[in-house]
Amino acid sequence: MVPEVSNGITVDRVHAITVREPGGPEVLTWTEVEDPVPGPGEVLIDVAASAVNRADLLQRQGLYPPPPGASDIIGLECSGTIVALGEGVTGWHVGDEVCALLAGGGYAEKVVVPAPQVLPLPDGVDVVTAAALPEVACTVWSNVVMDGRLELGETFLVHGGAGGIGTHAIQVAKALGATVAVTAGSGERLAKCAELGADVLVNYKTQDFVAEVGKADVVLDNMGASYLPRNIDVLAPDGRLMIIGMQGGVKGELPIGKLLSKRASVMATGLRGRSVENKGAIVAQVREHLWPLVGSGAVKPVVGRVVPMQEAAEAHRLLEASDVFGKVLLRRER
Amino acid sequence: MVPEVSNGITVDRVHAITVREPGGPEVLTWTEVEDPVPGPGEVLIDVAASAVNRADLLQRQGLYPPPPGASDIIGLECSGTIVALGEGVTGWHVGDEVCALLAGGGYAEKVVVPAPQVLPLPDGVDVVTAAALPEVACTVWSNVVMDGRLELGETFLVHGGAGGIGTHAIQVAKALGATVAVTAGSGERLAKCAELGADVLVNYKTQDFVAEVGKADVVLDNMGASYLPRNIDVLAPDGRLMIIGMQGGVKGELPIGKLLSKRASVMATGLRGRSVENKGAIVAQVREHLWPLVGSGAVKPVVGRVVPMQEAAEAHRLLEASDVFGKVLLRRER
Repeated sequence: MVPEVSNGITVDRVHAITVREPGGPEVLTWTEVEDPVPGPGEVLIDVAASAVNRADLLQRQGLYPPPPGASDIIGLECSGTIVALGEGVTGWHVGDEVCALLAGGGYAEKVVVPAPQVLPLPDGVDVVTAAALPEVACTVWSNVVMDGRLELGETFLVHGGAGGIGTHAIQVAKALGATVAVTAGSGERLAKCAELGADVLVNYKTQDFVAEVGKADVVLDNMGASYLPRNIDVLAPDGRLMIIGMQGGVKGELPIGKLLSKRASVMATGLRGRSVENKGAIVAQVREHLWPLVGSGAVKPVVGRVVPMQEAAEAHRLLEASDVFGKVLLRRER
Repeated sequence: MVPEVSNGITVDRVHAITVREPGGPEVLTWTEVEDPVPGPGEVLIDVAASAVNRADLLQRQGLYPPPPGASDIIGLECSGTIVALGEGVTGWHVGDEVCALLAGGGYAEKVVVPAPQVLPLPDGVDVVTAAALPEVACTVWSNVVMDGRLELGETFLVHGGAGGIGTHAIQVAKALGATVAVTAGSGERLAKCAELGADVLVNYKTQDFVAEVGKADVVLDNMGASYLPRNIDVLAPDGRLMIIGMQGGVKGELPIGKLLSKRASVMATGLRGRSVENKGAIVAQVREHLWPLVGSGAVKPVVGRVVPMQEAAEAHRLLEASDVFGKVLLRRER
């Protein structure tokens, strides 16, 4: 924030990354925006860091508009310090260091968020690093544990094992006692996945994951259409395919006969469009069940790069190049 | 059974419908078969009636082989009287009138079945009529209630509303407090669905179910590929599409983008290939939660035709013509 003098009073102008017009990373611009004010049930967070998600790249291109009522500033998660409470908020105090799942608005110096979407920092995680957690934690926990019901002794396959979701999902599935298979695009990235606990490593550029993995009880997929038939092939009886991205296309052929003979499920869910109540239920489970695993070190935040928030364009280029292992953070510079 | 004299001892020969060779209804033949003997954990049922399911038509044509270990005699359900108990069976006695979910073997005078798949007759239902219930009860309860989680106030759409599954599903969904929409092929059949409680009636020959129904929270589908895109269109946010048949083809286009934006699920499950433990869990829920609804008259067995078991070929022709409202029973003649 840049202090300014207006009528003799010092005013803090809030800055955020905005989208000049739909397009490439270069349209992301650091500008002054309206001061966000917390409404009833919301808290105002002075942001320490945000993080980049695939959905952000689509939103920048105008392909993924924010849900009704959400900020049109990009950014689905943040960490920082609570600086104001809206009416009726309990359980949080000004000065609390937190992280939060957002429907938007994270690429900014300040953001308002419904209180049920706020989490304390896990034990041992600093406030900047905590920005790496809300999206991956809520996505993986809701898909793999709550809906996918991954159990001890089952086999779990995650595509994009070297990305933000993948690096988190490997650790969560291992903590649940599953055998973990991953796909990634290089031996180097696969080796890092193995360090996080992955048991079966598949280079998708040179190997067929169906042949390598055999059968998986739960598959977490970010590719969509292009992987759909093989994802069904790799499902074990009673298997669950959880689709959370469509990097390989939006319409795919579904082999219903195979699905029926395996008694399999295909679920496709996003966090962003859910109700505050629904997000709050996920956040509450994450806090109760996952945060202790992070606190104990069983599940570590994986931060591949930290970029100043003003340089969000560079962060988008890094994610588009699939060059980073784990999350790309946007750190607020003071 | 035909008593015969062999070495001075009267022997009952068990008869069953067998498949002479894969083909049309005419290949179904009433023949002598080996006497079934209950193994550990199984009971032997002297059959009063069986019922015809769509899967039977496929099995007759050689397109749906029985799962490993199952009888190669057709028939996924029966009613009758327990005449012998295998080792270790508790909770059942010789002479109990029951009905049962089978992996096969129902078109016969006697059948063995694992004890967890046996149900008592619901209050007020005679032993022949009870053969109409096990498949539809377990299919609808597992898909619509257990996996589909249909709730009070939600909208439920069932395709093939006039069939065995459809006539049962309408009543169960109404008992759960849902709004019920059905598709069927004639005004007459739709009027009968309305008598069972259906609220929204769609003639699939002249109307588009998406336009007529609007949004459905749970869809129970027997068509598969041909209905897949419209079934996704009709799903409400967080909707669940349960596919239990493929009368409209086995490979369909899945619009993953729509699925993601609705946070929707597609599940395709059959009962037959499940483990005894899994079937037993469904049967236990049916007995606890559905049987009281049948006993109170809220959910009635819907029997469209009763055919002598020896005339199974005629029963298959009736089902293939989609001419019957509700179930077609095969009654054992004595």
